[in-house]
Amino acid sequence: MALMIKGGTVVNADQTLKADVLCVDGKIVQVGADLPVPAGAEVVDAGGLYVMPGGIDPHTHMQLPFMGTVATEDFYTGTAAGLAGGTTMIIDFVIPNPQQPLMEAYQTWREWAAKAVSDYSFHVAVTWWDDSVGSDMERLVKEEGVNSFKHFMAYKNAIMAEDETLVNSFSRCLELGAMPTVHAENGELVYHLQRKLIAMGLTGPEAHPLSRPSEVEGEAANRAIRIAQSLGVPLYLVHVSCKEAVDEIARARHEGQRVYGEVLAGHLELDDSVYRNKDWEFAAAHVMSPPFRPKGHQEVLWKALQGGTLQTTATDHCCFCADQKAMGRNDFSRIPNGTAGVEDRMMVLWDSGVNSGRLTMNEFVAVTSTNAAKIFNVYPQKGSVSVGADADIVLWDPAASHTLSAKTHHQNIDFNIFEGRTVQGKPAYTISQGKVVFANGELKVERGAGRYIKRPAFPNIYEAVERYNRTHVPVPVERD
Amino acid sequence: MALMIKGGTVVNADQTLKADVLCVDGKIVQVGADLPVPAGAEVVDAGGLYVMPGGIDPHTHMQLPFMGTVATEDFYTGTAAGLAGGTTMIIDFVIPNPQQPLMEAYQTWREWAAKAVSDYSFHVAVTWWDDSVGSDMERLVKEEGVNSFKHFMAYKNAIMAEDETLVNSFSRCLELGAMPTVHAENGELVYHLQRKLIAMGLTGPEAHPLSRPSEVEGEAANRAIRIAQSLGVPLYLVHVSCKEAVDEIARARHEGQRVYGEVLAGHLELDDSVYRNKDWEFAAAHVMSPPFRPKGHQEVLWKALQGGTLQTTATDHCCFCADQKAMGRNDFSRIPNGTAGVEDRMMVLWDSGVNSGRLTMNEFVAVTSTNAAKIFNVYPQKGSVSVGADADIVLWDPAASHTLSAKTHHQNIDFNIFEGRTVQGKPAYTISQGKVVFANGELKVERGAGRYIKRPAFPNIYEAVERYNRTHVPVPVERD
Amino acid sequence: MALMIKGGTVVNADQTLKADVLCVDGKIVQVGADLPVPAGAEVVDAGGLYVMPGGIDPHTHMQLPFMGTVATEDFYTGTAAGLAGGTTMIIDFVIPNPQQPLMEAYQTWREWAAKAVSDYSFHVAVTWWDDSVGSDMERLVKEEGVNSFKHFMAYKNAIMAEDETLVNSFSRCLELGAMPTVHAENGELVYHLQRKLIAMGLTGPEAHPLSRPSEVEGEAANRAIRIAQSLGVPLYLVHVSCKEAVDEIARARHEGQRVYGEVLAGHLELDDSVYRNKDWEFAAAHVMSPPFRPKGHQEVLWKALQGGTLQTTATDHCCFCADQKAMGRNDFSRIPNGTAGVEDRMMVLWDSGVNSGRLTMNEFVAVTSTNAAKIFNVYPQKGSVSVGADADIVLWDPAASHTLSAKTHHQNIDFNIFEGRTVQGKPAYTISQGKVVFANGELKVERGAGRYIKRPAFPNIYEAVERYNRTHVPVPVERD
Amino acid sequence: MALMIKGGTVVNADQTLKADVLCVDGKIVQVGADLPVPAGAEVVDAGGLYVMPGGIDPHTHMQLPFMGTVATEDFYTGTAAGLAGGTTMIIDFVIPNPQQPLMEAYQTWREWAAKAVSDYSFHVAVTWWDDSVGSDMERLVKEEGVNSFKHFMAYKNAIMAEDETLVNSFSRCLELGAMPTVHAENGELVYHLQRKLIAMGLTGPEAHPLSRPSEVEGEAANRAIRIAQSLGVPLYLVHVSCKEAVDEIARARHEGQRVYGEVLAGHLELDDSVYRNKDWEFAAAHVMSPPFRPKGHQEVLWKALQGGTLQTTATDHCCFCADQKAMGRNDFSRIPNGTAGVEDRMMVLWDSGVNSGRLTMNEFVAVTSTNAAKIFNVYPQKGSVSVGADADIVLWDPAASHTLSAKTHHQNIDFNIFEGRTVQGKPAYTISQGKVVFANGELKVERGAGRYIKRPAFPNIYEAVERYNRTHVPVPVERD
Ligand SMILES: [Zn+2]
Ligand SMILES: [Zn+2]
Ligand SMILES: [Zn+2]
Ligand SMILES: [Zn+2]
Ligand SMILES: [Zn+2]
Ligand SMILES: [Zn+2]
Ligand SMILES: [Zn+2]
Ligand SMILES: [Zn+2]
Repeated sequence: MALMIKGGTVVNADQTLKADVLCVDGKIVQVGADLPVPAGAEVVDAGGLYVMPGGIDPHTHMQLPFMGTVATEDFYTGTAAGLAGGTTMIIDFVIPNPQQPLMEAYQTWREWAAKAVSDYSFHVAVTWWDDSVGSDMERLVKEEGVNSFKHFMAYKNAIMAEDETLVNSFSRCLELGAMPTVHAENGELVYHLQRKLIAMGLTGPEAHPLSRPSEVEGEAANRAIRIAQSLGVPLYLVHVSCKEAVDEIARARHEGQRVYGEVLAGHLELDDSVYRNKDWEFAAAHVMSPPFRPKGHQEVLWKALQGGTLQTTATDHCCFCADQKAMGRNDFSRIPNGTAGVEDRMMVLWDSGVNSGRLTMNEFVAVTSTNAAKIFNVYPQKGSVSVGADADIVLWDPAASHTLSAKTHHQNIDFNIFEGRTVQGKPAYTISQGKVVFANGELKVERGAGRYIKRPAFPNIYEAVERYNRTHVPVPVERD
Repeated sequence: MALMIKGGTVVNADQTLKADVLCVDGKIVQVGADLPVPAGAEVVDAGGLYVMPGGIDPHTHMQLPFMGTVATEDFYTGTAAGLAGGTTMIIDFVIPNPQQPLMEAYQTWREWAAKAVSDYSFHVAVTWWDDSVGSDMERLVKEEGVNSFKHFMAYKNAIMAEDETLVNSFSRCLELGAMPTVHAENGELVYHLQRKLIAMGLTGPEAHPLSRPSEVEGEAANRAIRIAQSLGVPLYLVHVSCKEAVDEIARARHEGQRVYGEVLAGHLELDDSVYRNKDWEFAAAHVMSPPFRPKGHQEVLWKALQGGTLQTTATDHCCFCADQKAMGRNDFSRIPNGTAGVEDRMMVLWDSGVNSGRLTMNEFVAVTSTNAAKIFNVYPQKGSVSVGADADIVLWDPAASHTLSAKTHHQNIDFNIFEGRTVQGKPAYTISQGKVVFANGELKVERGAGRYIKRPAFPNIYEAVERYNRTHVPVPVERD
Repeated sequence: MALMIKGGTVVNADQTLKADVLCVDGKIVQVGADLPVPAGAEVVDAGGLYVMPGGIDPHTHMQLPFMGTVATEDFYTGTAAGLAGGTTMIIDFVIPNPQQPLMEAYQTWREWAAKAVSDYSFHVAVTWWDDSVGSDMERLVKEEGVNSFKHFMAYKNAIMAEDETLVNSFSRCLELGAMPTVHAENGELVYHLQRKLIAMGLTGPEAHPLSRPSEVEGEAANRAIRIAQSLGVPLYLVHVSCKEAVDEIARARHEGQRVYGEVLAGHLELDDSVYRNKDWEFAAAHVMSPPFRPKGHQEVLWKALQGGTLQTTATDHCCFCADQKAMGRNDFSRIPNGTAGVEDRMMVLWDSGVNSGRLTMNEFVAVTSTNAAKIFNVYPQKGSVSVGADADIVLWDPAASHTLSAKTHHQNIDFNIFEGRTVQGKPAYTISQGKVVFANGELKVERGAGRYIKRPAFPNIYEAVERYNRTHVPVPVERD
Repeated sequence: MALMIKGGTVVNADQTLKADVLCVDGKIVQVGADLPVPAGAEVVDAGGLYVMPGGIDPHTHMQLPFMGTVATEDFYTGTAAGLAGGTTMIIDFVIPNPQQPLMEAYQTWREWAAKAVSDYSFHVAVTWWDDSVGSDMERLVKEEGVNSFKHFMAYKNAIMAEDETLVNSFSRCLELGAMPTVHAENGELVYHLQRKLIAMGLTGPEAHPLSRPSEVEGEAANRAIRIAQSLGVPLYLVHVSCKEAVDEIARARHEGQRVYGEVLAGHLELDDSVYRNKDWEFAAAHVMSPPFRPKGHQEVLWKALQGGTLQTTATDHCCFCADQKAMGRNDFSRIPNGTAGVEDRMMVLWDSGVNSGRLTMNEFVAVTSTNAAKIFNVYPQKGSVSVGADADIVLWDPAASHTLSAKTHHQNIDFNIFEGRTVQGKPAYTISQGKVVFANGELKVERGAGRYIKRPAFPNIYEAVERYNRTHVPVPVERD
C-alpha cells in the first residue's frame, strides 16, 4: 500500500526542505524533490503544509485505576484523540501496586492497550523494592522492550518510592541500560501540608496547589538528580512544572550530568489562578499533580524548553469527569488527579511556541517528537521523516485556525483546560503506519491497529555513560 | 573583682576603636579611652594587642559516646583547650539514642559538663519522633534554655532522622521559637556507597570520602532547606563543607529564606588528599563526616564566609585517638568519625583569613564569635566587647607566631590535623568571666568554673519570621 | 543642652533593648535602663516608641542643574523634608561638567548646601579624565573629607564616563582609600534605543522604560564589577533596580569581591505600568533613570535586601515639577529625570519591609541607616544609638498610620509617587544634633543648622582590601 | 567518479548505523546497508572504522598579517594539515584595517585563499563603522555568501570595536540575516593591565595571562550578550576560554536568548602554567588570546560542551614560529599572538572527549562538524553523512593511536602545543569532495582544489528571531 505526500515542506528536527514523501507498507521509502507517483498510490496534496514527524506523547495514563476510580479515557479513545491532534505514538505507564509483581501489572496493561489505534509503548513504575523487582526489571528490558522505569516520589502511603527504592532501582537501571524517570514531589511534605491545610479549614481545590508548592517539587527534583549523580545513572524528570525544578536540571546539565526534563502543555500555559475559581467544578477539573503554578513559572518553562534544559513535551493525559472529581467535594486531597490534553498538545505548542517566535519549526519537531524518540531509543524509527522510518506523519496547516473545546474535541472527558482558545496552526492530515487516519477533521481509525513498540536498552548515551563510569572507578591505596 | 585591660585596640564585629576595658565581677562595665584604673584592679597591658570577644565554638562533642567508643576529650580538658585558643564558650550536643527521652539524655550531658572550665551550652538532637519528643522539646525550651535542635540526616540504622521526623521537629521548633539545625548528608546514599565500596575491595580510609561525596551533602542541604521553606522555619546547617551545599544556602538566602551556615576550620584548610596517605593512621586520623573535600571546595567555603553565605565557624571537635581509630582497620566505615580543633580554630582563621586579606578583623570577630552569639541568641551577653556583656575576652597578638602541633597543644588527642603549621597571630591572654585564664602560654583554669548558659527562645529574627508567616496565611475561597 | 529620651525601646542594627537615651550637646552620652534625668534636661516620652538611628539617605540631588533646568527641591527644603520623614543625614552629589575642575564644582555645591537644616555630605562625580582630575580627587579625599566618587555609565554626550575614565578613576580610588560608585546603565545602548524608539513614533513616557531595559543596567553593573575586580577595588552600585544587576552583585559577592548595592524606595514598590498611564503628566512624573521595572523585579529587590546582596536604601531624590517635565512633551528623552522620596523612604520601608515580615526591625535600621554609615565610613558617629554617637535619632511610632501625599508632604514638588498610600509606622519625633526638630507632625528647623560631615578615607574594609592586593602581587619568572 | 565506503559504521550527530556510503562526483548519493558497488568505483574498506562528517574548523587565520608579521601557515599548507587531521572545511577571517573598505579586504583574502586544498569560507570582521561599512556588509551577504561578521572587543588602538560599532554592526546583521560574532575581551582593561605589569617589571610571557584575566573575558562576553539582547540579534562567541564567559552564555540561553559559543581544543586541554615555564621560547609559543587559563577552567569548558552551553570546537589556528615570537623578547605584549591546531583538534577532542565518556560519538560529530554547519548555515551540505551532502568525510579508526608532535605534523610551524601527547583514535582516511586525500598517513592533495563555500543568510533560527521581534514591537500609548 503506497501513499505519496506531494508538494509539501518537510520539517525535521535538524532541517527544513521542500520534498515529497513516499510511504509504502507503513514505512517511508523515499524523500526527495519531485518524486514520481507510483501506480496505485494514494496521493495527498501537501501544498502549503509542513510534513513533520507525528507527535510522540511520552506521558499518558489511559484508563488508569487511580484514587478509587478509573480514568475515563481508554487506549482506544485516547489514541484516537491523539491522532486527531497529530500525535501518532504515546508512551503510557504500567503502575504496579506496592508488592504486586511488575510482570503481572505489565501484562494487565498490555491487555488493556490492545485496542489502541496508534502505536504505543510503556514505561513501568517501580513502586516498591525487593530482589524480585530487580529480576522483573531485567525481564522487562530483555524480553519486553521496556527501557524506562518510573518512580513516584509523592503519594505517601500509596505508590511513593522511598530513597531506598530509588537507590536500588536506579542502580538496576544502570546495569540494564534503562532510563530511570521520576515524578518529583516530596511526598512527606505534601502529606503534611494536606493535613495542615485541612485542619485550617482549607478543603477546596484552592488548597491543592498550596499543599504542593513548587519548593516541594524542587526538593524532589534535586534529590533524584543527586542520587543519579552519585550512582552515575542518567535521569529523566517527568512533568517539570516550576522554576525550582528547572534550575536543578540546568545546574546538573551544566555539570555534565545526563539529565532530561519533560514539560506538559498545561504547565506551559496555565497558572494557579484556576484553583481559586468560584466554580468548584471548574477548579476541581484542573486538579492534577504537580499543580498549575503561580504566574511567572510558565515563562521559565518556555525559556527552559527554548534553551535546551527541557527536551520533551507531554500531557500526563489522565481523564476524570465531573462526577469523579466530585469525590473530593469535602476534601481536596481526594479529588482524582488528572487533566486531558493528548489531542491539544501540538496545537498549543505550535501556537504559543512557533507563532510567538520562541521556537523554530525544527525545534517544535524536536520537542514534540524527535527528542522523545531519541531519549526513549526509538529514533529514527519514530521522530523522523526520513527513509526507513515508520510512516507516522502529520501534515501541518500553519494557516488554519481551530478552537479548542470539550464540545468538539475527541477526548473522552467533559472538560478542556484550554476551553475556548483559538489556535493558529493545526493538523490537516495525520498519517499512522502509512495510512491517513485523520483528514478534514474526520478520524478514520481502526480499533486495535496500534502496535506495541519495543524500545531497546542501551541508547547511544549509554556508550558515554559506561565509558565515563569505567574511567572513574576508584582504586584502593596500597598500604603495608 | 576588677580587671582593667589597658591600651589595647577593641575590635568588635561592627567597629574598631582604641579603648580600655574594665571588667568587674565577670561583666564588662566600662569601655572607653584612658579609663582610670580602679583601686585594686588587676591590669593587663594590651599595648599592641587586639581586644576581641572570646571565641564561641558552636559545634563540639566532648566525651561523646559514638560508634562503640567514647571521645577522649572531656568537658574539662576540652574547654581548657578552647581557652588556650581564645575560645571562651562552646555549644555542645546532647544526642539521645532513638527512643530515649530527650530530657533524660539532656540530664546526662548536663552532669558530664559540670566540670567545664569555661561557659557552655547545649543543642539537643532529635533522633526520632513521637508526641513525647515534642513535649520534651517544649520543656527544654521553656525550662532549660535550649533554643536549638539538631537533626542528623546521615547515620542510617542509628541516629538518622527521616523526612517525617524532620517535618515534625521543624514544625515544633517554629512553635517554640527555636532554631532547627541539620547535619546534611543523605544517609541512604552513604549507606549504599559504603556497602558498594567495600564490596569493591575499598576498605581503607581513602574510601571514606568516596562514600560521602559532596553531592550527598548538597542533596541533604537542599532537602532540609526546602522543608524549612515549606514550613516557614529558619534553619542552620552545621559543618557546611562543599560547594554544593554552599550554593543551596546562597540560593535560599537570595530568595529571602532565613538560612544560616557554619563552616569548620578543617574544611576551610584541608583537602581530601589526606585520605590517600600511605600511612593508615594518618589517613584514619582525618576521618570525620563530612570528609575533607577535593581541592577547590576550600576556596568556595572561604568565599562564602567572606560574602556572608556562611556566618559561623566551628570545629566539630570530637577526639578519637589512634587506638580508637584502629577499630576500623578492616572497614573504613567503622573508623570513629571525628577530629579535634577547638584550640586551633581562631589561630587558623586569623592566619588564613585576616593575614590573607580575605577577612577584616571585624569580620573575623563576627565569624568566630558574634554571629554565633546572635544566631543562638546570647548576644550581646556573649560575642561583644561592650558594657554589660560577659567579660569573655581574648587579647590577640597579631605579631606573635605559633606552631600548631599535637606535641604542644592542650587538646586531649594524639593528633593535630594542622600539625606543623606555623600561624601568625595568637591569643596573648584569654579572659573568662573576667578572670585571666590563659596568659603567656599558661592555662590557669578551675574545674567546674564554667557555667551552663541558658539561651532564650524567639531570637529577633522570629519577630520577622512570625510576621511573615502571619501575613501569608491562606484564605479559603468562598463558594456556594 | 540635654535631651532625655525616656521609656523607649532602642533598636540598633545589632540588637534591641529597653533603654533610655541621654543626649548632651548634640552627642549621645548615656544609653541604659532607668537613667536619671539631669536637671534642666528636656524629656521626651518614648513609651511605645522605637528609638532608632536617624535615617541616612545616601543618594539625593538637591537643586541639581540637569537636562536644562534645576531641581526644585533645594538643600533647605530637602533636608527639612528628610527630617519630617526621620532622615537626619543625606549624602548628595557634586557633579562637575566634563572638563570642569572637580574642586570648582565641589565649592559650588558646598555653597548651595550651606542652608541645609540637617547634616549632609557629598559624593563627587568623575565625569572625565586627565591628571588634574586625579589630583583633585586627592585633595578632596585628604582635605575635604570626600571618600566616594561617582561615575555615570549612562548619559552619552553629557556626563557619561567611558571605560578609560572608569579604569583610571577606580585605580585612583584604590590609591586614595575611597569608594568608587556607579550609576550602571550602558549609555551607548540607551542612546541607540532612544533614537530607534523615536524613529518608530514612540515619543511618550511609555518609551522611557523601553529605552533603558533592565539588560542595559545588567550590562553596566557587570562591567563596573569586572573592572573593579581586575583592579582590586571595592565598588558601590547606586540605585540597583533590577534582577539583572542584583544577580551580578550576588555573584561578585559570592566570589569574595567587596561590592555593595543600594536600592531606592521607589524601585522596591513601583512597577513600569506607571509609564503607560493615559495621563501624560502622571506618566512623566515617574520618569527617572533607571526607570521603574516590570512586575517581578520588585520582589527580587526585596529578597536581595533581605538576603544581604543589597545593603542600603536611598531615594535619588531629585524634584522636577509638572512644568519642568513638560519640556519632554514631544520627546520622552527630554523629560527631566527624577522623582522625590527623601521624606517617604523610611515609612515605605517600614510598612513594606517590617510589617510584612521581610525585615526585622534591626535589619530595617541597618538598611536605612547603619549600613550606609559603615560603607561611607561615618559609623558609629552616624547610624548608631550608642554612647559617643551624634544624637541623630528618630522615635518611631509603629502604631501610628500616615497617608503619603503631595498635598501634605514637606517635599517641594507637586507630585508624590506614593500618592494616597497609607502606611503604618511613622516618625513621632526626629532629633537632629540632639534637638527635637520634628514632633507631632511639625517641623522646627533652623536654616543652616546642618553641618557638612567629613568622611575619612580608608574604611575598615580597606585593611583587608590592601592586604589582599599585597598578597596577590605577581612575581616575574626568572629566566636566563 | 565514484567512491564506495564499504562496511563502516556511519556516525552522524543524530544517530549511528551500519551502512555503506556511495559518493559520486563529490556528492553522497547513497547511504545504506550492503550497497552494490558500481562498476569502476573506488572502494575503501571501512571495516572497524567510523564514517563521520569531515571536521569543520570555524576559526582559523591562515597567512594572517598581525602584530607586524605574517602567520607562517598559508591556505595551501593549512588546509592540507586540516585534511591530515580529518578537517575538511575551514572558516577563516577577513580582517580589514580600520578605515579599510570591507570589500577590498575581502577580495585580498579571496585571492590568498585560492590555493587551498579543501573547501573554505570566510567570516568578515567589522573593525570600524560608517555607512559604507553597512553597505559593504549588505553586498557581502547578498553577493558573496558571507553570513557572519566578526568583532574584536580587544586590541585597543588597533582593530578594537567600541560599543558604538558593536551596536551598529549587530543591528545591521539583524537586517541582513547574518550572525554577529565576537572575540570577547575588554580591550581597555587589557591595555591598562599590560602597561601596569610592564611598569612592575613583568615583561615576560608569564605576564600575558595576567594582563587578560578571565574576568576581562567575562565582562566582554556579557556586554556583547546584553547588546545582542537589547537589539534582538543572535550572537556567536568565538574561543570561549573561561568559566566567567561560559556562565554568561549559559544564563543567556536559559533566558531564551539565541547565543552560541565556540571552544578551542587548546583551551580545553592546557592551563596557564605553560606561561611560567623557565624556557622563554616554550612560554612564548603558547601566547595567544585569550590565554590558557588557570586549572579548573578546562573542566568547566568540557562540561559546557557536554551540556550544550557551547556548541562548536575550533582552533584559532594562527602560526608564528620562534623567530617571530622573539619580537616580544623584552615586552610580552609584542609577542605575536597565536598557536596552531587545525590538524590536531579532532584527535584531541576524540581522545579527551569520547574516550573519557564525556561525549558520545554523536556528540563528537556535532561539536566538531555538524553544529558549525548548522550555525553558519551550510547544513546538510556540510556536517552530515547523508544523501545529497558534499562528500567530505573522515573514516575514523578508534583503535589506532598517534603521537602529536611538531616533528611529524603537517602544520607549518615549529611548535605543537600538544607535543608528545599520544592519543587513541585518528583519521584512517580523509575524503574531500568525494576523493581520498589522506590515507595511511599520506596526503594526496591538489593545490587550489578547495572551493569557496557561499553561506546563505537567514538560517532557520532567523525565522524564530524575526517572529519574536515582530511580536514584541512596542505600541505607543494613545493620549489626548
Ligand atoms: Zn506524575
Ligand atoms: Zn503521570
Ligand atoms: Zn555532623
Ligand atoms: Zn558534629
Ligand atoms: Zn543615577
Ligand atoms: Zn542619582
Ligand atoms: Zn580572537
Ligand atoms: Zn582568532
